[in-house]
Amino acid sequence: MNLVLLLPEDLVAPDHARLTGRRLAHVREVHRAAVGDELTVGLLGGKMGRGRVLRLDDEALELALTLDQAPPPKLPLTLVIAVPRPKVLNRVVAAAASLGAARLVLLNAWKVEKAYWASPRMKPESLRDQLILGLEQAKDTVLPDLRLARLFRPFVEGELPELLAGGTGLVAHPGTGAAAPKVLVAPVTLALGPEGGWIEAELHSLGKAGLRPLDLGPRILRTETALAALVGRLF
Amino acid sequence: MNLVLLLPEDLVAPDHARLTGRRLAHVREVHRAAVGDELTVGLLGGKMGRGRVLRLDDEALELALTLDQAPPPKLPLTLVIAVPRPKVLNRVVAAAASLGAARLVLLNAWKVEKAYWASPRMKPESLRDQLILGLEQAKDTVLPDLRLARLFRPFVEGELPELLAGGTGLVAHPGTGAAAPKVLVAPVTLALGPEGGWIEAELHSLGKAGLRPLDLGPRILRTETALAALVGRLF
Repeated sequence: MNLVLLLPEDLVAPDHARLTGRRLAHVREVHRAAVGDELTVGLLGGKMGRGRVLRLDDEALELALTLDQAPPPKLPLTLVIAVPRPKVLNRVVAAAASLGAARLVLLNAWKVEKAYWASPRMKPESLRDQLILGLEQAKDTVLPDLRLARLFRPFVEGELPELLAGGTGLVAHPGTGAAAPKVLVAPVTLALGPEGGWIEAELHSLGKAGLRPLDLGPRILRTETALAALVGRLF
Repeated sequence: MNLVLLLPEDLVAPDHARLTGRRLAHVREVHRAAVGDELTVGLLGGKMGRGRVLRLDDEALELALTLDQAPPPKLPLTLVIAVPRPKVLNRVVAAAASLGAARLVLLNAWKVEKAYWASPRMKPESLRDQLILGLEQAKDTVLPDLRLARLFRPFVEGELPELLAGGTGLVAHPGTGAAAPKVLVAPVTLALGPEGGWIEAELHSLGKAGLRPLDLGPRILRTETALAALVGRLF
């Protein structure tokens, strides 16, 4: 937690926050802060700054706030990711937030097992928790726009062309030999397939929607590794 | 497991392997293979190819091998990573292998807790298991050269300048404002700090050894995310 992310309900006054639970425990046990210390803080959806510790004990962390910095700009990036296994999902969602994607779409695909959608980790509050962990890691306050697309075709045929908005659309797929475009017109939409990859019909639909294939080379990377490598390459 | 990695002791003949344990369980339960199916296989440190399933039951997986492809080339990259928390270590080591780094150095640093070195995950056989998982993920057969540097100064002052070998040396550190070099002379040596970062004295030593600072921008990324983003950017 490189930034303590404050929720509106934490504010007892505009310049005074009171925290309990996970963040209290983290600041005590990991930061090992003391009264008078300054922590990096930010208000969800708002500014960042410093919080001077007024109180820190079993019950609460109280902070005097100075919020005077803008959060880092988002990347003009929509990530469209086929729902990964629950074990991997949390890390992918947190990584997407920490890398600064403006929007994250979790999409169904042929090789996404139905059980993945039923996982408690796919619940909106659980996904939001992971996005928040990503923001706390990266020192950001602005949640990416999160969308769950349970039906592949209506999303890809109906919504995706609009999301592209005249920018660059790419779909990661091994074996095509297609390199990253030299000139990248923002916004960028980047689709990453499930374990086992996209099927041909899906690639066809994604292509019709305006996404060009992008080959990452002979190495097959885990979703969260491929995601970070692509963001590093493109931005 | 996108490639079944065969160890020399799995070979009952040059073209015939017999596997038990983890890989047997994975091929049965995840791949759900059947007799006659072909799997992507590779011999540790050697060639890759196909393995036709001759037998698959509770006891063993037997494969008829055709090993006729070279593994993908390694990146001319030495990663020097401050030992991360045990919880994170396995993912970092596997990611380094899957990304194709030729060499991985796990280095001590001021903000590396002593207990990290005592973790069972730092044992050579455990680290090797993670490297193998990374190779199986990426479809590679060649282990990166792994080095444990328990003493910062002897490694950085004595060995690091030689490892650089006239190539490009970079040390990731936030707040320096230094962008990635436009021209990258291989080999590349890339150092990534611990949670909390390098201390000034360490940065000074790394600089004297020939590593230039590299700023990843305002977002602080987890080690495995930063690692992948940097490899994606540089290669």
